[in-house]
Amino acid sequence: LNHQLTQLPTTIFTVMSALASEHGAINLGQGFPDTEGPGHLTEVAAQALLDGRNQYAPLTGLPELREAVARSNARFYGLQIDPAREVIVTSGATEGLASSLAALLNSGDEVVVIEPAYDTYLPMIRLLGAVPKLVRLTPPEWSLPRDELAAAFGPKTKAIILNSPMNPVGKVFSEDELQFIAGLVARHDVYALCDEVYEHLTFGARHIPLMTLPEMRERCIRIGSAGKSFSMTGWKVGYITAPVALATVIARAHQNLAFSTAPNLQRAVAVGLDQDAAYFETLASEMQLRRDILASGLREMGFSVLPCDGTYFLTADIRGVGELMTGAETDLEWSRRMTVEAGVTVIPVSAFYDGALPGAPSHLVRFAFCKKPIILEQALTRLRDRI
Amino acid sequence: LNHQLTQLPTTIFTVMSALASEHGAINLGQGFPDTEGPGHLTEVAAQALLDGRNQYAPLTGLPELREAVARSNARFYGLQIDPAREVIVTSGATEGLASSLAALLNSGDEVVVIEPAYDTYLPMIRLLGAVPKLVRLTPPEWSLPRDELAAAFGPKTKAIILNSPMNPVGKVFSEDELQFIAGLVARHDVYALCDEVYEHLTFGARHIPLMTLPEMRERCIRIGSAGKSFSMTGWKVGYITAPVALATVIARAHQNLAFSTAPNLQRAVAVGLDQDAAYFETLASEMQLRRDILASGLREMGFSVLPCDGTYFLTADIRGVGELMTGAETDLEWSRRMTVEAGVTVIPVSAFYDGALPGAPSHLVRFAFCKKPIILEQALTRLRDRI
Ligand SMILES: CSCCC(=O)C(=O)O
Ligand SMILES: CSCCC(=O)C(=O)O
Repeated sequence: LNHQLTQLPTTIFTVMSALASEHGAINLGQGFPDTEGPGHLTEVAAQALLDGRNQYAPLTGLPELREAVARSNARFYGLQIDPAREVIVTSGATEGLASSLAALLNSGDEVVVIEPAYDTYLPMIRLLGAVPKLVRLTPPEWSLPRDELAAAFGPKTKAIILNSPMNPVGKVFSEDELQFIAGLVARHDVYALCDEVYEHLTFGARHIPLMTLPEMRERCIRIGSAGKSFSMTGWKVGYITAPVALATVIARAHQNLAFSTAPNLQRAVAVGLDQDAAYFETLASEMQLRRDILASGLREMGFSVLPCDGTYFLTADIRGVGELMTGAETDLEWSRRMTVEAGVTVIPVSAFYDGALPGAPSHLVRFAFCKKPIILEQALTRLRDRI
Repeated sequence: LNHQLTQLPTTIFTVMSALASEHGAINLGQGFPDTEGPGHLTEVAAQALLDGRNQYAPLTGLPELREAVARSNARFYGLQIDPAREVIVTSGATEGLASSLAALLNSGDEVVVIEPAYDTYLPMIRLLGAVPKLVRLTPPEWSLPRDELAAAFGPKTKAIILNSPMNPVGKVFSEDELQFIAGLVARHDVYALCDEVYEHLTFGARHIPLMTLPEMRERCIRIGSAGKSFSMTGWKVGYITAPVALATVIARAHQNLAFSTAPNLQRAVAVGLDQDAAYFETLASEMQLRRDILASGLREMGFSVLPCDGTYFLTADIRGVGELMTGAETDLEWSRRMTVEAGVTVIPVSAFYDGALPGAPSHLVRFAFCKKPIILEQALTRLRDRI
């Protein structure tokens, strides 16, 4: 069987969600909201089923959704996108990432990956016979080590994966950082795979797609997620924006990995993307409120909380908080123990690092705050009681 | 960009569907029914959306669907399947095939593929750095050349892909043929990836999963399709049945290629699988009626129609029918010309052969008969008028 997959663990999100439900813990692990997305979108999706939209959607997506994606690119970022040739609808952003990597890479190519990294990047790169070149952000500020990043690019580099707003650390890359990255991408004549699933979940910081920078229009693949933008993570509808030359090859990958995506959900996502600005502002401000509740509660308990300008996630340092740490524990052991003993589940940040390399932080955990304020308060109370 | 994908054409199904709609042709190309699946299933799917089943389903699928898949295996084939560990729900059978191949193969492995072959098999095998070994069925009976098949297995063989009932040719492999294949699989200590998406669409012939043969339980991956079994091709819900050792690794591939599938559609598919025998019998007998209408109409016009015991598809020889053939045309040219001149779209069978190798038949086309009888009659009339 496949050597790499055989050695891969089950995704940490599934492991921790299973543990949470086994112990009746409040699940601040896997990133999914406990508040439903807009009711008018579920109604559109339900009606489309009843209207008989049940056969194959086109390979690259319903025209109405591709047009809505193009409009959204224009409205939020001033990007002019051809909906017929530069948009591909995928079965979730995960499939979009897989199809994009399959299109970009040949065996032996190198891909620059910034750690901590979302957990499908490295396995997908390796499955395709390509080689990740890892560059680690530096906590607690999650700052970008520019010299190291520059050194990671070489003659075999084909692409960089840039996740901004960034899971698990809530970093929104600054314009200055993006300019530095764009310079490397242009100088080395490579591509950027931009995982922007949290594009509408920023708190004060402005999200700038790398694609909007000079010389980047033809080099970037931008991936969005209906799950994250409309609080419907189960729908598994993603959308790719890419220049024609790239989109054509990504569509070839997509036709072999998934072919198409449920048309009723696509219809609803098209309606979602066309919602007015207030929807997106409310989404972000409600999430910011939740971040603030969690962050201040954790700080009061003595956790040192790392900066977070976007996503669903907050990272915190678990060292020396009350009696919670024995001193010898890893973030994984701590996460398991808190599930069992406090009834609160989190994700160890070390799960976002290549397990084979030394030096990953083992003192940080990720809390998902995409939950009702009362649930966050309960989780804080449970943790406080345990200290 | 990826060398293989860059050279790959857009799937023939998309090409011909686009041509059909451009010319207002009756689309007997891409295989999707024009009759809706059971209304009570769309209602379940719609209700689940409204009931708030909109966040991530578990990685391997909703328990209720996995249990229904296990029950279906027991009911139809006497297979005892552990729903917790031997079933994986995928985002369509295409993703199931991709995840299974990713789990099975390492770079350099060989896979025996029987031609004509469904159009994602070869690209996926090659994307993974593996090598297809092709064995061609012999028309017009689509008989299995046993010596050639045996010779295709060697020390590097990891698996065979077996599609039965078989697209595009409608062949249902006989028990005797399956025993021969099982012997090769066991003798060479390899796996069989069984694409059985048309399992419930057979006309008289009995579909026997290779997995039910002696020594095959631990060697087979069986793939089913809600799209094909419930006439909802747009839903893109597939299900894999595999022994634990294989299912575990397939789940690792699935977590990186797609992660999970819309829970509301999964719920409806669970209900679909539990329908009584009458549903499945009616599905097959209505499809058989459609096959018969198309086959006799084509025969009356002078086509020689090849045998068809299952699937949505009938193949016919286009040589020497009326004035339809110039004698110099390929099946692709003929398919294009019939779309434009007769208003009927079909799929050239040569699209199911490796384009790089000589000797593929170029005188056969595939008609999809999963359409209303009146539409089939209209298509026949249009063809007759053109002769
Ligand atoms: C696909 S399950 C993981 C969801 C997520 O994005 C996260 O929790 O990081
Ligand atoms: C995925 S589109 C092709 C549908 C199909 O199975 C066929 O027409 O052969």
